[in-house]
Amino acid sequence: MSAPIRVTVWNEFRHEKSNDEVKAVYPDGMHKVIAECLTPEPDMEVRTATVDAPEHGLTDDVLDSTDVLLWWGHMAHGEVKDEIARKVQKRVWQGMGLIPLHSAHMSKPFRFLMGTGCMLKWREIGERERLWVVEPGHPIVEEVGEYIQLEHTEMYGERFDVPAPDDLVFISWFQGGEVFRSGCCYNRGAGKVFYFRPGHETFPIFKNPEIQRVLKNAVRWARPVKREPIVQGNYKPLEKIEGAE
Amino acid sequence: MSAPIRVTVWNEFRHEKSNDEVKAVYPDGMHKVIAECLTPEPDMEVRTATVDAPEHGLTDDVLDSTDVLLWWGHMAHGEVKDEIARKVQKRVWQGMGLIPLHSAHMSKPFRFLMGTGCMLKWREIGERERLWVVEPGHPIVEEVGEYIQLEHTEMYGERFDVPAPDDLVFISWFQGGEVFRSGCCYNRGAGKVFYFRPGHETFPIFKNPEIQRVLKNAVRWARPVKREPIVQGNYKPLEKIEGAE
Amino acid sequence: MSAPIRVTVWNEFRHEKSNDEVKAVYPDGMHKVIAECLTPEPDMEVRTATVDAPEHGLTDDVLDSTDVLLWWGHMAHGEVKDEIARKVQKRVWQGMGLIPLHSAHMSKPFRFLMGTGCMLKWREIGERERLWVVEPGHPIVEEVGEYIQLEHTEMYGERFDVPAPDDLVFISWFQGGEVFRSGCCYNRGAGKVFYFRPGHETFPIFKNPEIQRVLKNAVRWARPVKREPIVQGNYKPLEKIEGAE
Amino acid sequence: MSAPIRVTVWNEFRHEKSNDEVKAVYPDGMHKVIAECLTPEPDMEVRTATVDAPEHGLTDDVLDSTDVLLWWGHMAHGEVKDEIARKVQKRVWQGMGLIPLHSAHMSKPFRFLMGTGCMLKWREIGERERLWVVEPGHPIVEEVGEYIQLEHTEMYGERFDVPAPDDLVFISWFQGGEVFRSGCCYNRGAGKVFYFRPGHETFPIFKNPEIQRVLKNAVRWARPVKREPIVQGNYKPLEKIEGAE
Repeated sequence: MSAPIRVTVWNEFRHEKSNDEVKAVYPDGMHKVIAECLTPEPDMEVRTATVDAPEHGLTDDVLDSTDVLLWWGHMAHGEVKDEIARKVQKRVWQGMGLIPLHSAHMSKPFRFLMGTGCMLKWREIGERERLWVVEPGHPIVEEVGEYIQLEHTEMYGERFDVPAPDDLVFISWFQGGEVFRSGCCYNRGAGKVFYFRPGHETFPIFKNPEIQRVLKNAVRWARPVKREPIVQGNYKPLEKIEGAE
Repeated sequence: MSAPIRVTVWNEFRHEKSNDEVKAVYPDGMHKVIAECLTPEPDMEVRTATVDAPEHGLTDDVLDSTDVLLWWGHMAHGEVKDEIARKVQKRVWQGMGLIPLHSAHMSKPFRFLMGTGCMLKWREIGERERLWVVEPGHPIVEEVGEYIQLEHTEMYGERFDVPAPDDLVFISWFQGGEVFRSGCCYNRGAGKVFYFRPGHETFPIFKNPEIQRVLKNAVRWARPVKREPIVQGNYKPLEKIEGAE
Repeated sequence: MSAPIRVTVWNEFRHEKSNDEVKAVYPDGMHKVIAECLTPEPDMEVRTATVDAPEHGLTDDVLDSTDVLLWWGHMAHGEVKDEIARKVQKRVWQGMGLIPLHSAHMSKPFRFLMGTGCMLKWREIGERERLWVVEPGHPIVEEVGEYIQLEHTEMYGERFDVPAPDDLVFISWFQGGEVFRSGCCYNRGAGKVFYFRPGHETFPIFKNPEIQRVLKNAVRWARPVKREPIVQGNYKPLEKIEGAE
Repeated sequence: MSAPIRVTVWNEFRHEKSNDEVKAVYPDGMHKVIAECLTPEPDMEVRTATVDAPEHGLTDDVLDSTDVLLWWGHMAHGEVKDEIARKVQKRVWQGMGLIPLHSAHMSKPFRFLMGTGCMLKWREIGERERLWVVEPGHPIVEEVGEYIQLEHTEMYGERFDVPAPDDLVFISWFQGGEVFRSGCCYNRGAGKVFYFRPGHETFPIFKNPEIQRVLKNAVRWARPVKREPIVQGNYKPLEKIEGAE
């Protein structure tokens, strides 16, 4: 009935080409696996884009017709042009949803939108993680259990240098002794941002049905709200002011 | 496709009987006007309840089958049985949405859920109010303009003694010089609460299409999220702990 | 120069009498150890109160002259009179700071102020806890390291059924696989609440210098702000309104 | 006893030279008036800096020895070097307090820290403003009345395009019909930001004793917390993990 959510899955798509271990997990790239998870949803229209396409696949046409943008990046953060990252930031201000995944905590669009350093602790030894739901009424955890367990992940640890989220949905436990705010919702401009921690490239995390459930929920939560553009600038009084210049 | 949202509109329904001015505006009660606004929505199933029904119309059966409860009360706050108000509070903890309207800021369910005094300043001289949208990406303001203007309302003024809302959606301007946090979202337990200020009984505010738009949006936002009940109490370790008792 | 902060340390003082293990750790009660930690501070004036004193030691005189109230309770939550708990709640609304410790998550004053169920998961096997600082600029973590490690504690696990804190300062990691929001700041009325998780009665946690540092910081953060009482009720317009009744 | 708070008052200092009306109000610049307000405080050490000094007066030495930086700018936002604005941003991440005043909502340091557009509505007709206190327990409103009234100000109106503040302290009412979130507290990195709306250059607002009271409170609230630098990057496990690489 209502128009479908137009989703663009952006992936750097480098590790999958240069690293055999990653290639074995995601032969066609993480974006393909994420797109295959979302495409069957009747209310979503999905396409993909990668860093090596012209304008990183994010032309004005693509951005203007994207309702929700998922973003996975890591080794090529620095190659993303400032100009394109600024366009993504502005589209969020206008209402587009942004879902930075895992190492996208250091991506330009996320850092520009947060205004903080976005750094954290990390460790790659394939330890166990458990993402605990701390806001059970949030639409992003619809039909999710009380926690999601991942047997092998990279660790991310606090202090995660981001603004306190408007809604904190998940907190992770790690085997090595750390915790992490793993699901963080932000309102920025007229748009929404959901940072979601899981997704290390050497583990098949985006094939996990519980993680996929969260991604689908997050896309629906992050869709733009239909409204007129915001009025700014010089503004006439709405009330009569006696003696006003 | 998905099950409809089961809405119960609760109204004290006293002013409409005892006060001719109110009767002229809402001859069948405010609950009827609100129900008539929501009933045509294809995703909502609507019924009503009033304070003078047995158990105030809120039997266990009714509460257990209510997804979102709207609440208007004023002169009979004190007549609402503590036992019933506590049941409403617990249903919110379990996931039910609650939308207290206008003078319901002093209703028992709202006060129990907030934990604060919930008092404010007020004045009844029929002055002008303008509700400004301050969170334009929030689903509660979908298709709402940059402000909603009400020509004649009762004034409510700050300091409004509530916890800072998890999301502040509207701030009101009043002709007499005051401001008010008019649209306040709260997560409480697995449920959601949206306090919405407008709705004085002597003005036809619930017949205003913009106010009706907010009510419809709020019902959808406040619907429960499908999840298993939360596990509490004594809990076995999920990890092996060497030397544990 | 400025007046000292008047601190009252409230302790149930029951486990310490009935349980030899607890008596061994806190022979004179937890309140004595906490008071001994705070008393040397030049800006604090400290006294204690217990559940078995008349009016639980919280007469109007005591409450009216208390700036910050620390609260430890567990087995006698139900014996605390509703009337006294309501007075504590109202004093917080007026500006008094409240610091509920550990099992005081189920105390009446805290539950009344939160409006939620306040339940959690728990386990007593003496496992390890690590409280991670997640808001490093908050005054409550002044001179605290990046985490506080406790070798033996009771576990408290999420979902902790409280409103999202206005500031989340600590998140705990537990050896058995859980996480917990361990340091939660709330503004309620004109007062402040800091829920602090550590403090199980069978472990000498209140003798830990890092925990003591947090308690001192929290007392200073929670002190009332000097202001005139809040004006509420019927209120004259501050602006001239043409044609007003 | 404790070290004084080292305050730097930064002012563009252009309008005061180029505009006779402004010169009449602030002959030596707004920074002088603000500095004269803060200097007598026994716990503050105050200096000033302006845009036309080398490195805008914000050398590494100055920034490294600044605990709290107040910032007024307007016509020369674009002249502030990105490099210097980035240094201010990073100093906030490390703990420095930042207090952007009035038109500094569009200053580079504030925009970099917020990540949003920071625009608003405005109007210069010298109308009346009333700043209502909405968080009465916050230290920034210590000894402030229930509102601050300014007879003649520039209007700023919502939607103010900033992240929802961590604490919202003031909401403004304007004669022409608008509202504005006028006192906004943010934690960013280990530092604090307090955006404070009043301060238009053609009105003697910084000479107003109530505004001065807020500035003094804000400086104390924004001072850095003493802590070790945050640990980031690759991190060894704190727990023994069986079979870890």
